[in-house]
Amino acid sequence: MKKNQKVKVLSILVILFLSIYGNVQAQRGTQVKSPEINSNNSVTFRLLAADANKVTLSGNWMTGNENQLEMTKDESGIWSFTTPVLPAEFYSYTFNVNGVKTLDPNNVQIVRDGTRFENYVIVPGDASNVYTVKNVPHGTLSKVWYPSPTLGKTRRLYVYTPPGYTESDKKYPVFYLLHGAGGDEDAWTTLGRTPYILDNLIAEEKADPMIVVMTNGNAGSAAAPGEEPIQGNTLPGFSQQAGGTFEQSLVNDVIPFIEKNFRTLNDKNHRAIAGLSMGGMHTQNITNNNPDMFGYIGVMSMGLMNNSRMAGNYNAETHKKQIEALKQSGLKLYWIGCGEEDFLYESVTTLRKLYDDLGFKYEYRESTGGHTWTNWRIYLTELAPKLFK
Amino acid sequence: MKKNQKVKVLSILVILFLSIYGNVQAQRGTQVKSPEINSNNSVTFRLLAADANKVTLSGNWMTGNENQLEMTKDESGIWSFTTPVLPAEFYSYTFNVNGVKTLDPNNVQIVRDGTRFENYVIVPGDASNVYTVKNVPHGTLSKVWYPSPTLGKTRRLYVYTPPGYTESDKKYPVFYLLHGAGGDEDAWTTLGRTPYILDNLIAEEKADPMIVVMTNGNAGSAAAPGEEPIQGNTLPGFSQQAGGTFEQSLVNDVIPFIEKNFRTLNDKNHRAIAGLSMGGMHTQNITNNNPDMFGYIGVMSMGLMNNSRMAGNYNAETHKKQIEALKQSGLKLYWIGCGEEDFLYESVTTLRKLYDDLGFKYEYRESTGGHTWTNWRIYLTELAPKLFK
Repeated sequence: MKKNQKVKVLSILVILFLSIYGNVQAQRGTQVKSPEINSNNSVTFRLLAADANKVTLSGNWMTGNENQLEMTKDESGIWSFTTPVLPAEFYSYTFNVNGVKTLDPNNVQIVRDGTRFENYVIVPGDASNVYTVKNVPHGTLSKVWYPSPTLGKTRRLYVYTPPGYTESDKKYPVFYLLHGAGGDEDAWTTLGRTPYILDNLIAEEKADPMIVVMTNGNAGSAAAPGEEPIQGNTLPGFSQQAGGTFEQSLVNDVIPFIEKNFRTLNDKNHRAIAGLSMGGMHTQNITNNNPDMFGYIGVMSMGLMNNSRMAGNYNAETHKKQIEALKQSGLKLYWIGCGEEDFLYESVTTLRKLYDDLGFKYEYRESTGGHTWTNWRIYLTELAPKLFK
Repeated sequence: MKKNQKVKVLSILVILFLSIYGNVQAQRGTQVKSPEINSNNSVTFRLLAADANKVTLSGNWMTGNENQLEMTKDESGIWSFTTPVLPAEFYSYTFNVNGVKTLDPNNVQIVRDGTRFENYVIVPGDASNVYTVKNVPHGTLSKVWYPSPTLGKTRRLYVYTPPGYTESDKKYPVFYLLHGAGGDEDAWTTLGRTPYILDNLIAEEKADPMIVVMTNGNAGSAAAPGEEPIQGNTLPGFSQQAGGTFEQSLVNDVIPFIEKNFRTLNDKNHRAIAGLSMGGMHTQNITNNNPDMFGYIGVMSMGLMNNSRMAGNYNAETHKKQIEALKQSGLKLYWIGCGEEDFLYESVTTLRKLYDDLGFKYEYRESTGGHTWTNWRIYLTELAPKLFK
């Protein structure tokens, strides 16, 4: 190769590199590091916004009336804010520039909560260790479409198969994990950190290797927004979520599909189900109507609901009979979790009172905080080790 | 159930509904629809930003000096802009509020391009039909971790298995699809629309059912930013991408892993490989060094590179021998695609001249436009139907 050619080849490479990384750097801003976790576990957030008049920070560690903290601009146009020392946790945050919510262009870590996008940062420590991606064997997370004759659609769910699944012929227990209103099948995989939590718990031998199935509980939808087989990004109406048909489809369509297409242990002692909020209502409806299907049941941040929801035809006698049937079913675990500030706290108290009156045993976990993903991640971390033991 | 209890149950449900959807509505803004695809396929973008001084729109349909179009504010504080009639395509865009890039809070459809996030909108029509999620059988997309002894890491890749894979015992051909610099294993699955393109082409019987494997070509990384088994969101250095070790790992680690763990047809006529930009360089390096491994080869937006990249020890004689070996190998297809405005256009011309001089046959597709995902989606849509025929 002649020297000229060498120079040309090198030039192309340099141009390729600079054009791509120049772009990236331009987007990331100059010398802006955000978020920066300081040595004492305070966190500094920064945004280059020389032409902005007001920049605020909103993060889920804030309490009370702190929810829009004003950031301060320096002479180079960089706005910043440093938090107090934060406990180890998975935190989400956004900026607001002149009244418009804005993501942090220097942080590639974002999650979707319903239709909202937020950045996240993991403050390290014991409590958040289980949420981080670590050098442990990883399971496989698959987006799978399945036929739902009950709902008249091909629908999407996620299947987590544990490390070792592909390489063995072993059969595994299955944990069905349901999201809340406003969520979809993505929620537990992203906000819920389920794949990482399971990878880490299994690596530490705290949880048994299991398959986790994360469904879409919005009966009118096929899949998360943008993944629907239609143009658009609309949200499902509540009637689609609360009509009772999702629950039927889980029993009639999802479980047979999973047990046919994955290597599953197909008895009640190797089936678990749990859900948060609306998913806690779904869980109750499914297990009340099918007392011999699951050996492990978890209800997060949801209490006593009438059986057909908006229809108003709740029948206390039927409910009692259902709980009696569950009581007789040889259930291994009925687990209830709720935050002391949860707006559904009272409903949980009502449910617990009914169970207590009927002598139906359950394990109750009351946490701090409210109706939040912080709590649901904690509940998953605590519940998964109790399954299939 | 007493009337009071019924009221209480209903109240809880209404509170649950309103609290979740109220939140969503607050985030989505009042009466703001964005983007709105008008009946003539112009698109109106809107953003509620009453306190902003300047809001601009940037979209990948813009050309020349149009790249920051000023939007107009109405009396209700909503800024808007309506495009001219747009050809059917998959478009990405962002807003800019007082100098800060901002996503559209009313559009849940976003994609990541390296470290940048952008909204997208699909303008319907023949050209974009293949990118949309349709009511056709869907393949499964799995995030899989595999051991890479060559790179000393457990690394992540995506596997698309076609509709019918799970339900049959059939073996399938495999297409290895490589991203460019600044990208990672997510790129082809999101920006590249690969699962939808394959679903749609297979449904129309334009492409054969095939497995598609999408790797991470950054040899220093294990996985996409945020999915690395370390805290942080740093980008890999270029030396990690261009050292030649990724190419070795694809041959030594990825292909054996895929052929062991999936039902694959394991001969060269059932193996294809293609890549864009840096991935086109990887593709050349892999196939030049392994002329009997792939029956179908695609090089997108990349031309003549020296074999060891930055090291400068390109050897023209070696390269000629490699191409001669490919020529003798009974290759089914060597496909090159490039946009007429691509900054690497000249390198492609140089490569084609070499191939022409050597009498090495290839199929050449020259498109309009440059070094863009618009082109790479088009190339995938055109190349996939030519594979395994």
